Amino acid sequence: MTLDLPFPWGPADRTGIMPISGGTTGPSGFRAAGVASGVKASGKPDLAVLVSNERAAAAAVTTTNRVKASACHLTDRHVADGAAQAVVINSGNANVCTPDGHAHTELLAKQTAQHLQIAVDDVLVMSTGVIGVPLPIGTIVAALPTAVSQLSTTGGHGAAVAMMTTDTHPKEVAYDVQDAHGGRCTIGGMVKGVGMIEPAMATMLAVITTDAQVPAPTLDQILRDSVAITFNRISVDGDGSTSDTVAILANGAAGPVDESTLARAIHAVCAELAAMVVTDGEGATRIAGVTVSGTDDHHDAESLARSVATSLLVRAALHGADPNWGRILMALGNAGVDFDPRQVQVDCAGVTVCRGGVAVPFDHHQAAQAMQADAVAIDVVVGAGPGVATVLTCDLTPEYVRFNSEYTT
Amino acid sequence: MTLDLPFPWGPADRTGIMPISGGTTGPSGFRAAGVASGVKASGKPDLAVLVSNERAAAAAVTTTNRVKASACHLTDRHVADGAAQAVVINSGNANVCTPDGHAHTELLAKQTAQHLQIAVDDVLVMSTGVIGVPLPIGTIVAALPTAVSQLSTTGGHGAAVAMMTTDTHPKEVAYDVQDAHGGRCTIGGMVKGVGMIEPAMATMLAVITTDAQVPAPTLDQILRDSVAITFNRISVDGDGSTSDTVAILANGAAGPVDESTLARAIHAVCAELAAMVVTDGEGATRIAGVTVSGTDDHHDAESLARSVATSLLVRAALHGADPNWGRILMALGNAGVDFDPRQVQVDCAGVTVCRGGVAVPFDHHQAAQAMQADAVAIDVVVGAGPGVATVLTCDLTPEYVRFNSEYTT
Repeated sequence: MTLDLPFPWGPADRTGIMPISGGTTGPSGFRAAGVASGVKASGKPDLAVLVSNERAAAAAVTTTNRVKASACHLTDRHVADGAAQAVVINSGNANVCTPDGHAHTELLAKQTAQHLQIAVDDVLVMSTGVIGVPLPIGTIVAALPTAVSQLSTTGGHGAAVAMMTTDTHPKEVAYDVQDAHGGRCTIGGMVKGVGMIEPAMATMLAVITTDAQVPAPTLDQILRDSVAITFNRISVDGDGSTSDTVAILANGAAGPVDESTLARAIHAVCAELAAMVVTDGEGATRIAGVTVSGTDDHHDAESLARSVATSLLVRAALHGADPNWGRILMALGNAGVDFDPRQVQVDCAGVTVCRGGVAVPFDHHQAAQAMQADAVAIDVVVGAGPGVATVLTCDLTPEYVRFNSEYTT
Repeated sequence: MTLDLPFPWGPADRTGIMPISGGTTGPSGFRAAGVASGVKASGKPDLAVLVSNERAAAAAVTTTNRVKASACHLTDRHVADGAAQAVVINSGNANVCTPDGHAHTELLAKQTAQHLQIAVDDVLVMSTGVIGVPLPIGTIVAALPTAVSQLSTTGGHGAAVAMMTTDTHPKEVAYDVQDAHGGRCTIGGMVKGVGMIEPAMATMLAVITTDAQVPAPTLDQILRDSVAITFNRISVDGDGSTSDTVAILANGAAGPVDESTLARAIHAVCAELAAMVVTDGEGATRIAGVTVSGTDDHHDAESLARSVATSLLVRAALHGADPNWGRILMALGNAGVDFDPRQVQVDCAGVTVCRGGVAVPFDHHQAAQAMQADAVAIDVVVGAGPGVATVLTCDLTPEYVRFNSEYTT
C-alpha cells in the first residue's frame, strides 16, 4: 500500500522517501519471527519476537488510559534509558485487569531476555486481546524457544501476522530513505489494531525499526511529534484502549542520516500505519479525512475535526455516502471551540455543499456518487486563521455493531 | 409509564407525587392542539400550539451547541423576563443553517401572538427536523388559525404527537402533587427526541406545564437543577443537537405549593421524560443506567459514568447482553478522572463480575440472562468517596446505524 489519499495525510514533502516492500526486518540488523503458542483457541500465530543484532536507540509512546496494561508500564520503564534491543508481543490476551498481570509481564520479559542472551531491561513487551482473563504465561513461555529459533531477517511478516487480533490482514510498511548528503537508511513498520481506536492514542500496537544512527533523545522527539499528528489523529470508535503502544528501535547499522529527512520518513511510516488501522477498522467500508482549517491555531482545528470525525451521525452518513452537512455543522458546534457558524464552508468529496453556514445548491446525486469512494475528503473552513488539522475516521456500519455485540474483546 | 427502573433515577423521595394520566393540558388553565400544516411530506401532524389562559412564570434551558437554532435564541430572549404564555412548535424542519432562519422564527412568534392575542415576547418557539433546508414559513403560518381554533384542555396529546420526528410514539407524563400543608397542583410534560441525544443537553424538545404558583426565579432554579441530573445525564448517540430546549410554564391557577415538594415533582417529570427519550432511542432495544459511586465528588462520578454510557463498545456489548466488564474498565480509564483500577467493582444487572479491578468467578449464563432485561443496571464502585451519579443510555444496534445512514436528518 502506498498512500494516495484525497486529503492531506503524512508529510507533504516526500523527497528521498521511497516506499519499498517489506516490514520491520527490512532495515539491516533486525530479525523477527511469529509462532503459534496456543493462546489463541484458533491455533493461529499469537507470539512475535523482534530483535536487533545490536542494542538500539529506542523510544515508545504508550496509552493515556488510566487503566493501563502492565506491558505498557514495563515498556515505559525499559525504554526510559533510551535503549532497547528486542520486542516480544503476544496476541489473544491483553493481560489487563488480571491478578498476576504484572508478574507475568515481568516473567515474559525475563524469559525473552534469557533466550536472546540480552539484558532484561532491553526487552519491550506488548500484549493485546481479551481483558480480564489471566494470561496463560506458561503456554507463552513454553513457545519462546521455538520463536527465538525461528528468528530471521525475513521474519517481519510472520511477526506482523502473529500480532493480529481481529485484523483482517497483517499491516506492514517499509521505506528506503536517502538524504541530500549521501546518508541512507531503511525504515520498516508493522501495526495491529482495528477497534478500540481513539485519538488519545489509537488502540493499537506498532513497532517501527530503522538502521539509521540517531541519538535516543532525537528519536524520542521525532516519534512523539509524528504520533501526535498520525496515530493520535485517527478514530474508529472513540474508545481508547488500555494497551496502546508505538515503539521504535534504531540500531545505527546504516550510519547517520540527516535528521529532518529521517523525521519526515518516520512521519510517513506513522501516517501510513495509522491509515492502515482506520482502513481495516471493524466493519468499515470507507475512510474519511476530516480537514478543518481557518481556526486561530492547529489545536482548535484538531478539536473541531475530531468532533466531526467521532460523530456517530456523521459516520453513519458517511456509510450512506450522504453529504449530510447539517450533521457536520452540528458536530462542529459540539466541539467546545468558538467559531462563527455563518463563516463555515463544507466540501464533501470535493463538492461544496454549504457556504456561509447555509446550504448552497449542489447536485446531490453527483455528491453522493463522489462520496462512494474508498477514501473521502471532508473539508471544513471555519474562518481565515492559520490553524489546520486532519483527523482520519471510517464509516460506522451495522457490521461494526453486530461484530462488537457478539464478540468479547 | 411509571418509572420502575433497577437503578436510581429521579427523586428518591416521591411522597406526595402521584402519577396520573395526561400531559401538558393536565394542569388547569392550559390548552393545546396539534395539526398537520403540510411541512411533513407524510401529511402527519407537524405544528403544535400550547397556551396558558394567564401569563405564566416561565423558564427554559436551551442547547449549548455553538451552532444554535434561531428558535433557541428567540426562546432564550423571550423567557429572560421570567414570563411566557404560549409555546409554538413545528416539526419536520429545524430551521437551522438557513438564510432567513431568524426572520422566519420571529414571524412564527409574531403570528402566533396575534392569533392568540397575547404579547409576542410571551411566545416561545421550538423547531425540530432537518437542518439546512429553508423553513416553509408560509405553509406553517397558514395553518396557525386552524391550530388556534382547535386549542382545547384535552389537546396536550395532539400537541405531543405533532412535535414528533422519528419518535415511535408520543411521550407524555402527568403528576398530581400534594404537599404537607394542603397545597396541591398538577404537573404535565411532553417530550420529543430519539437521536442526536447527548449529555450537553439531550437532543430534544420538552414542554412542562404546571398550575402551581411559583416565583419565576425559583422556577428557573428548579428547572436547571432538575435538567442537570436528568436530561443532561442521558445519551443516545453522543451527538448534541442544535435545537435542544426544555421549557416550563407555571400559571399559578392552583395556588402555591411547598417549594421542595414542587422541586421533587419537577425532578420526577424531567427524569421520566428523559428516560422516555432514551427508551425510544433510535434502534434501541434496551436501556442501561450506569451508576458510578465512590468518587471524591459527584462531578467525577458523572464523568466516569458518562464515559461508560457513551462508549460504543460498552453499548454494543449491552446490545449483546454481554457482561463485558473489560470494556467498562477501558471506558472508565478514558474519562480523564484519576482513580485506582485496583479498587474497582463492577456489577452488571446485579451480578458482580469484577472486584478489586480483576475478574471474579460468576455464572456467565446467569449474567447474560439478567442483562436481557429491558432496563439494566451497571453499577461501578471506584472507591469510598461520597460521589455518585447515574447516566442513562441505550444499546447501540445495527438498526441505529442502518437508520442513520439512510435518513437525512
